[in-house]
Amino acid sequence: MFNAVTIVGVGLIGGSFSLALKNLGLTKKVIGVSRTKSSADKALGLGLIDEAMSLEDAVRNSDLIYVAIPVDTTIPVMKQIMDLVTDKQIVVDAGSTKSVLCASLKDHPMRHRFVATHPMWGTEYSGPEAAVQDAFTGRTCVICEKEKSDPVIVDIIENVYRQLGMRLSYMDADSHDMHAAYVSHISHITSFALANTVLEKEKEEDAIFELAGGGFESTVRLAKSNPAMWVPIFMQNKEHVLDVLNEHISQLRKFKSCLEKENFEYLQELIEQANKIRRIIK
Amino acid sequence: MFNAVTIVGVGLIGGSFSLALKNLGLTKKVIGVSRTKSSADKALGLGLIDEAMSLEDAVRNSDLIYVAIPVDTTIPVMKQIMDLVTDKQIVVDAGSTKSVLCASLKDHPMRHRFVATHPMWGTEYSGPEAAVQDAFTGRTCVICEKEKSDPVIVDIIENVYRQLGMRLSYMDADSHDMHAAYVSHISHITSFALANTVLEKEKEEDAIFELAGGGFESTVRLAKSNPAMWVPIFMQNKEHVLDVLNEHISQLRKFKSCLEKENFEYLQELIEQANKIRRIIK
Repeated sequence: MFNAVTIVGVGLIGGSFSLALKNLGLTKKVIGVSRTKSSADKALGLGLIDEAMSLEDAVRNSDLIYVAIPVDTTIPVMKQIMDLVTDKQIVVDAGSTKSVLCASLKDHPMRHRFVATHPMWGTEYSGPEAAVQDAFTGRTCVICEKEKSDPVIVDIIENVYRQLGMRLSYMDADSHDMHAAYVSHISHITSFALANTVLEKEKEEDAIFELAGGGFESTVRLAKSNPAMWVPIFMQNKEHVLDVLNEHISQLRKFKSCLEKENFEYLQELIEQANKIRRIIK
Repeated sequence: MFNAVTIVGVGLIGGSFSLALKNLGLTKKVIGVSRTKSSADKALGLGLIDEAMSLEDAVRNSDLIYVAIPVDTTIPVMKQIMDLVTDKQIVVDAGSTKSVLCASLKDHPMRHRFVATHPMWGTEYSGPEAAVQDAFTGRTCVICEKEKSDPVIVDIIENVYRQLGMRLSYMDADSHDMHAAYVSHISHITSFALANTVLEKEKEEDAIFELAGGGFESTVRLAKSNPAMWVPIFMQNKEHVLDVLNEHISQLRKFKSCLEKENFEYLQELIEQANKIRRIIK
């Protein structure tokens, strides 16, 4: 059990992590670090944190510092944190990209006190109000560059995630970013683009959304996601996201070509191929 | 109240329609017409229909004939039905495209006994087992070319759909097909293409799906949809689907260009624009 855990960024992920720690009795106290007072107040009001502090005070008073902020601000904030921590403390991040962060910390003298993680869960909402109980249960948490962290702290963090009900998966930072581009980042881009496609048409046709059913809702749900979170993810993971996006556009072009050429057989084949996703999602 | 309603195609839509009619006590009997004996047996076993008959017998014994089969087979089957019906019967279809069907029936001497409808609801599943209670509640039903149907039968069918909890919307067949391309057909194409994008990668990377979270599931859910239903929809609605698909590919290219040029500001703008979908979906 931790005496005090600091959550840097008490939003969707940080807030949900805090709820889980409290629920499992894994810490005596949760300290919150927020960029704005209103966000800290909300987190206090919702019971996500017990106390709000400045980053420096929070770090000095914690056993575990858990960073869950947009991946661009993670870089400078993590540097500040790592410059403060001692060999008795553990630093963990929960960001959706891993290569840029891991590279930025590669030569830091305290690198061994840091564990790079990505609990693969999220919703289209953000902020303290978006935090939910049992968010991570049944999901996978990726741990990157495990060999660069002290084995004893890796054990502790693995144990925390396991108690949260997560499966663990290990890979290097670049493999993580490639996988994340395929199973998460591209879904967000297609949703954003689909929303823009239809909103564009809505300018002419004001009744269009009256007809939108469940299928439309499910494919554009992610288009409600926060740009403050997603712009930095796409930018940091630019190369992999571009690879997947190019592949996705070329898959869409196959559908286009089938329609243009009235190639029923190939269209049937493309859909049957896509149906194989049934193996994967229930 | 109807004495007997025939459902041609007791699958997702026909089966759900039958459940709703029975639940509301709107018919004494439901007769099912299925292409295969196994499907008819399933529908009987699930209580979706009271009796299975050949198309000809079923039509002769019904007040209302409700057609819910793939849009390509709808054309010849509807011709058979319309050649059999009298001025005491009503024929309704529930297909996802309207132009081709309406054009094919335009000069039929019994056109006035037909109401062209599209209850805008569906899931990625098909067959009698996919039928659900309360499927249509809260959704919109489009009625096309209302002026070509006898007013008295339009009243009856509007009343049925209203009792099912549906809002009614009126448009010509081509407007319907354009709207359907935007709020339904394109979502299916993006889902199929996204599934194929990721399944392609999975050949090299067998661990990829271990990481797939809720966002991925929601955007590829529709990729499980049945090609027997969707190939004919895309083909019949080719022109509108191509328009939307071209617009969607051009929206995706904007994201691509932002990444290639590292244009953060424009990427932020594109996402903020997409966020406006919040107005539409809860």
